[in-house]
Amino acid sequence: MRQVAVGIDIGGTNTAIGVVDMDGSVLYETQLSTPQKKDNPDATLDMSDKLCNIFIGQITSAIHEAIATVKKSISDLEVKGIGIGAPFANYYDGTMGITANLPFVSVVPLADLIQARLPGIHIVKVTNDANAAALGEMIYGGAIGMRNFVMIALGTGLGSGIIVDGDLVYGHDGLAGELGHVTVEPGGRHCGCGSIGHLEAYCSATGIKRTVFDLLAKYHLIESPLANVTYNDMTSKMVYEAALKNDPLALEVFEYTGEILGRSLADTVHALRPEAIFLFGGPTASGEMLFGPTRKSMEHYLLPFYRNKIKLLPSKLKAGSVAIVGASALVWKELDKNK
Amino acid sequence: MRQVAVGIDIGGTNTAIGVVDMDGSVLYETQLSTPQKKDNPDATLDMSDKLCNIFIGQITSAIHEAIATVKKSISDLEVKGIGIGAPFANYYDGTMGITANLPFVSVVPLADLIQARLPGIHIVKVTNDANAAALGEMIYGGAIGMRNFVMIALGTGLGSGIIVDGDLVYGHDGLAGELGHVTVEPGGRHCGCGSIGHLEAYCSATGIKRTVFDLLAKYHLIESPLANVTYNDMTSKMVYEAALKNDPLALEVFEYTGEILGRSLADTVHALRPEAIFLFGGPTASGEMLFGPTRKSMEHYLLPFYRNKIKLLPSKLKAGSVAIVGASALVWKELDKNK
Repeated sequence: MRQVAVGIDIGGTNTAIGVVDMDGSVLYETQLSTPQKKDNPDATLDMSDKLCNIFIGQITSAIHEAIATVKKSISDLEVKGIGIGAPFANYYDGTMGITANLPFVSVVPLADLIQARLPGIHIVKVTNDANAAALGEMIYGGAIGMRNFVMIALGTGLGSGIIVDGDLVYGHDGLAGELGHVTVEPGGRHCGCGSIGHLEAYCSATGIKRTVFDLLAKYHLIESPLANVTYNDMTSKMVYEAALKNDPLALEVFEYTGEILGRSLADTVHALRPEAIFLFGGPTASGEMLFGPTRKSMEHYLLPFYRNKIKLLPSKLKAGSVAIVGASALVWKELDKNK
Repeated sequence: MRQVAVGIDIGGTNTAIGVVDMDGSVLYETQLSTPQKKDNPDATLDMSDKLCNIFIGQITSAIHEAIATVKKSISDLEVKGIGIGAPFANYYDGTMGITANLPFVSVVPLADLIQARLPGIHIVKVTNDANAAALGEMIYGGAIGMRNFVMIALGTGLGSGIIVDGDLVYGHDGLAGELGHVTVEPGGRHCGCGSIGHLEAYCSATGIKRTVFDLLAKYHLIESPLANVTYNDMTSKMVYEAALKNDPLALEVFEYTGEILGRSLADTVHALRPEAIFLFGGPTASGEMLFGPTRKSMEHYLLPFYRNKIKLLPSKLKAGSVAIVGASALVWKELDKNK
């Protein structure tokens, strides 16, 4: 029997569904549109339930189709379970919380709804995308064999998954791991969550962009290609490209980002003493430009007996498929727990 | 058989040794002097080894004596093991690290040395005092039945023990749980560890005292009894006593302390989502004077979906015996793991 898991990533725009083998290879992948806030303009419960029902139907149809397609080439396929990464997803009760982007006005019992339509599959587990990525790193990636590490996902915001003693930290109610919302600059930048001075307002693709404008305001008459880009047009990739050409402003943006990220990672080390911290997501494509200042800062802020011991590493998961692959890791982890 | 554990607390001045039953009652307690830095003025390895040898001998003699004494009244005594709380103690390898106050110039293999002299006892475990207190809270105190909580010990510094999924977080090398050294004020106060802006420089008995002088400097001509006390004479208890008499300066010290502690605890909640946070130690005797501002600040800084869910509680362990009782909890925890 060739054992596989289904990995599902419910994103703000698209939902990706894939069949993943035990090595983390994606054997088949498909996508469907995630229902949007605008589909339920009056935010009614009726419309929310209706959209949810349609969405779950689409997901289960896509799962059937995916399995059928893979079975054409692998006849002795055994589907061990379904893992789902979703916003505010709660591992303990299998639900997805209410989020700003989706049209659902009540908590969605995601695992139950899917399991009810797929009675032959006994494992259906959910968690948020950063937690799923951490499991993916442990099961398929650079953290194989590690029992204590932290995964930091840098994107629009900053997500995190914390592994302690070989398992994800879910906390008392399944919603632990929000390192993007620790305070790093009291009285500092406004965060998307409504609070002030949070890590993700500095260390994320958006944070990098904001730092450009902070530094443009700080200095007098700057000669940088970034001075010709509007706030709305600016991307962290532009900053990276300018830094590659030794633009001093862009280089300082990475120094600044690394200084704050490294300091915050040192805090996390002081609390949890992980073996390694993995960075993942768009801004990590800048490599040492980001890792260098971050490592330097982390080491500076670490207590002496932690220094030169914590590995700061790029994720080994492939950028394109990490969401699906991470979600599928929930299944292997669950099987491992039930052993 | 009446099962008991031996709890040992190696402090900077005294070492306390007690026999503790399964309810956390101390049946017998004795003390001996901890060897001092000044006993090894040239910091030689020879003298370090000699002092260590004498110290271990004194501890094991005291254990024999303690057990013999308790046996006089409880003839069917069964000693299940020895738990030791010590500075920089490492649960994984049973060692005590090098510290500023003690005369030992190399790492002390504490568990091995004691076990070698007491071959009949099969469990000898060490950890630091804050971790031991966290275990004590879980096994005898207010955290019975809790699987995720954090213990904060406010003393000269700030120690912490983190429980995730029913066990202490030791991290990759046994030295996790240093929440006193997370950065809360970048560029702020100097910490005893040599770094800047750490939590324990603000939220500890020493931190409270330092805040008095910060506020004395801030305002113009203050009428407060605290303005008549030198830095070296000031204690956190004096601040509490002044606050009880509604001294505005003293009240503001507690507000300030609670603001920073609450913000940092919110960071910890965002990372770990504990069920409760317990505060322990001298400054907690001030009760709501400290808990009130801390709770208010923590709630203010929490992400909306964590609000009004995290219990902020005083430890239920008795102040006088917590070190011994906490250390003894290591034994019951170990027995529970081996089940």
